[in-house]
Amino acid sequence: MAFKSRITKKVTWGDLDALGIVFYPRFYEWMDEASHIFFDKIGLNLVGLLNEKNIIFALVETGATYTKPARYHDEIEIISYIKDIEEKTLFMRHKIRSLKDNSILMEGYEKRICVKQLSKEDLKAIAIPEDLRQILGMHK
Amino acid sequence: MAFKSRITKKVTWGDLDALGIVFYPRFYEWMDEASHIFFDKIGLNLVGLLNEKNIIFALVETGATYTKPARYHDEIEIISYIKDIEEKTLFMRHKIRSLKDNSILMEGYEKRICVKQLSKEDLKAIAIPEDLRQILGMHK
Amino acid sequence: MAFKSRITKKVTWGDLDALGIVFYPRFYEWMDEASHIFFDKIGLNLVGLLNEKNIIFALVETGATYTKPARYHDEIEIISYIKDIEEKTLFMRHKIRSLKDNSILMEGYEKRICVKQLSKEDLKAIAIPEDLRQILGMHK
Amino acid sequence: MAFKSRITKKVTWGDLDALGIVFYPRFYEWMDEASHIFFDKIGLNLVGLLNEKNIIFALVETGATYTKPARYHDEIEIISYIKDIEEKTLFMRHKIRSLKDNSILMEGYEKRICVKQLSKEDLKAIAIPEDLRQILGMHK
Repeated sequence: MAFKSRITKKVTWGDLDALGIVFYPRFYEWMDEASHIFFDKIGLNLVGLLNEKNIIFALVETGATYTKPARYHDEIEIISYIKDIEEKTLFMRHKIRSLKDNSILMEGYEKRICVKQLSKEDLKAIAIPEDLRQILGMHK
Repeated sequence: MAFKSRITKKVTWGDLDALGIVFYPRFYEWMDEASHIFFDKIGLNLVGLLNEKNIIFALVETGATYTKPARYHDEIEIISYIKDIEEKTLFMRHKIRSLKDNSILMEGYEKRICVKQLSKEDLKAIAIPEDLRQILGMHK
Repeated sequence: MAFKSRITKKVTWGDLDALGIVFYPRFYEWMDEASHIFFDKIGLNLVGLLNEKNIIFALVETGATYTKPARYHDEIEIISYIKDIEEKTLFMRHKIRSLKDNSILMEGYEKRICVKQLSKEDLKAIAIPEDLRQILGMHK
Repeated sequence: MAFKSRITKKVTWGDLDALGIVFYPRFYEWMDEASHIFFDKIGLNLVGLLNEKNIIFALVETGATYTKPARYHDEIEIISYIKDIEEKTLFMRHKIRSLKDNSILMEGYEKRICVKQLSKEDLKAIAIPEDLRQILGMHK
């Protein structure tokens, strides 16, 4: 059973578009935020990895489907887990559900590739190092 | 040959993350902006459709792949066109390229469904009305 | 003693600029969010006022001073209270402090004017209605 | 006569709040963007200063007044100039006006302090170096 990280949010006025529903790029901001918290919870703080090992799990693909809109001051939950681990690549899944009626609002994914930052502008995809792979594998 | 709408942008300081590259949800903001301008150019202003006919092309799915990062003050172009028109659904494609070296930075899509707003919170998917379908078809 | 509303936040990757510190317009987003929660807590939900009475507390002036930067995954608190109530105008104050060492990161204010929305584009400044003034006064 | 930098923008769907008007933190994003372009135009690229001299013009105070709302697809102009130069401090002014009727929508300011980045987290306010002061003074 995959480890699932959960965070909650209250939709704010500033998240809404002119229809009074969440402007969809906010969902991607929240998925990214949820992934950072997921990594932190399993002991792989992403900024720590960057500062100590120059390793980044860089985004190469994202996507989402939207089933129901979220509105002003709705309480929502973002559930995040690892779907798959390949040689260089990690697949994260995220679901956003309303805490009012448990309905699913969004399902999304991120494909993140393991990258070594050789210098400020020189990035190189690498195999996920064994110690990280082990931690990720334990939480899949 | 599909009609292609093009807009240009200069990446700003506020678009960057702590790596000095564009934080990826900005790409979704720019795709949405580009779609609104696409619709306006072909004579279907989206806010006009909402105010006059209570019709929305609501997003039900989006996705993108990222091939190269964009950096501070890079000049970029967003190219947008219709990929497919189904009974209730419209598929938009967007490419973002660097104006420095023409390299592709991102390729993305939006699936938009035609929706009638019956009241403020009551939305109903409908077949794309014939007059709109004709205009869309002429620009596909 | 003024009623003080408090909310907490964890700074996310997406809030950071290329220096790794919070991009300052986020502070304004958080002040606005904190004001909406302040109003809700004292029984004056701002979207409720809009929908039921066509009344908006519209922003006419904002400002902030920044004393210390906020960084990745910092836990912060936003403290919000009413500073003054005039005939048509409300002054809110906000402080953001670090929960790590209690240091103040930002102090800001909002001047909000009471506005009646006569039609979608027609707004008129009015004296704060007596029932609202009473509730606001009790929490000043 | 102060040098005035001008940039134009088209308000997008994603800039709007649930009232269909620009959510005010966007104005701060645009002022910041306009300042970066101002500096670049006078030959002081802010990221260049950071990379070559570890110098930042860090924000210590901002503020704005809002006189008229901006709406969907409005064309606006942001006019930016130096108001004052002190020993360590620079005051920028920004006006946003509608290109439809020339009306002023917002007036804002930024107080930026000259900072030397000694290490990643160690910042020290310094007197504006003489070569920079000269360039700034020529455009005041």
